[in-house]
Amino acid sequence: MRITTIGLDADDTLWHNETIFRLSQDRLREMLSGFASHEVTTAKLAEVEKRNLRLYGYGVKGFTLSMIETAMELTGGDPPGRLIADILAAGREMLSEPVEPLPGVDHALAELSEAGYRLILITKGDLLHQEQKLAASGLGDLFAAVEIVSEKDAQTYARVFDRYGTGAAEAVMAGNSLRSDILPALEAGGWGAYIPYPITWAHEVADAPEGHPRFTELAAISELPGWVRSLA
Amino acid sequence: MRITTIGLDADDTLWHNETIFRLSQDRLREMLSGFASHEVTTAKLAEVEKRNLRLYGYGVKGFTLSMIETAMELTGGDPPGRLIADILAAGREMLSEPVEPLPGVDHALAELSEAGYRLILITKGDLLHQEQKLAASGLGDLFAAVEIVSEKDAQTYARVFDRYGTGAAEAVMAGNSLRSDILPALEAGGWGAYIPYPITWAHEVADAPEGHPRFTELAAISELPGWVRSLA
Repeated sequence: MRITTIGLDADDTLWHNETIFRLSQDRLREMLSGFASHEVTTAKLAEVEKRNLRLYGYGVKGFTLSMIETAMELTGGDPPGRLIADILAAGREMLSEPVEPLPGVDHALAELSEAGYRLILITKGDLLHQEQKLAASGLGDLFAAVEIVSEKDAQTYARVFDRYGTGAAEAVMAGNSLRSDILPALEAGGWGAYIPYPITWAHEVADAPEGHPRFTELAAISELPGWVRSLA
Repeated sequence: MRITTIGLDADDTLWHNETIFRLSQDRLREMLSGFASHEVTTAKLAEVEKRNLRLYGYGVKGFTLSMIETAMELTGGDPPGRLIADILAAGREMLSEPVEPLPGVDHALAELSEAGYRLILITKGDLLHQEQKLAASGLGDLFAAVEIVSEKDAQTYARVFDRYGTGAAEAVMAGNSLRSDILPALEAGGWGAYIPYPITWAHEVADAPEGHPRFTELAAISELPGWVRSLA
């Protein structure tokens, strides 16, 4: 089996992301603790995010707007003092958060790149913010192409692997989301390497396609080069 | 001179955009009229937007966050009743606004496409929102490629016209912003057709490169096919 191209998810595959969202969510629950229990705030935020997903898409700016909307609803439309300003500040901090590759990422990507595979970053989220994170990560030079997309479905993977590689059948997609990275890449005819991150956004949860001939689950990204070589 | 490729800006070139931002700004000034004069609100919003541009980039979500921040500052951190909820609703309305091509757009694009030119949409803004606007416009099928970018500089145009065309020297960029559409496309070695829109965001204002051999100003997009043909 010939593999020419490796697609890589960014958030929670190359660097932390969900942890930063969870920390902001914790801060929101504290800010609203005079109005609602932590559980109620969590549930309301999830409801607001889901309702807005079609309009806002993925990323920090939409999340910040959803945090503000949650605060307005849970305070009966009368948020105290600096609450809204604090949420705005939390959102800006998320956008300025330093980016550090997860353990083993530099080495695994360098190994794949040196072995001649074409690396493509394929990620959702705010266009500008993802570009800024890639630049801050120092990993940019390892990628032959960067595709920031609004939705990761089978057509997306087929199109990206056609344009930048030699088609999905000769491509591996590696990432931490079964729902966004693995299942649609398999559906497009590609290979999938699932590398779980300790926490997953509820919206991204799905069942693993156990026994699928082009699927594997890896404990860490350091195992990716070996698995890719084993396909040859 | 051989021209193979036509790059087109989207907002205020293919459909209204700035008008929608101005209407939302008018609504914000009304909402805040008990706290600040229209002039003060306009100036404060411009200041907040400029401060946030590096973090938020272009688009409705960042603009909504900047409207909220402006409201917080002008109300001394104590916004009345539904003010913040109203701004959130205004932002969601901007994202749901119906999209209708400006007069002459359909015909001009169809004429260029039928004449064999490769059309490329090149636009800034929120990724998801721009894709949704293109889909709603009904113009999507006329474009060979769509590039939603975080910044329009000379490198952007060089890269896009290399990837999807035959290089900048054989490409025309058409749009309503001298600063974002025309000057960097000329700098990249391409041609520029400036098609002014009645109003321009202050951030986009620049001087026209009068006398530049690869520059023209057109009164309407209906003049674009004729000008492109005249270059042959």
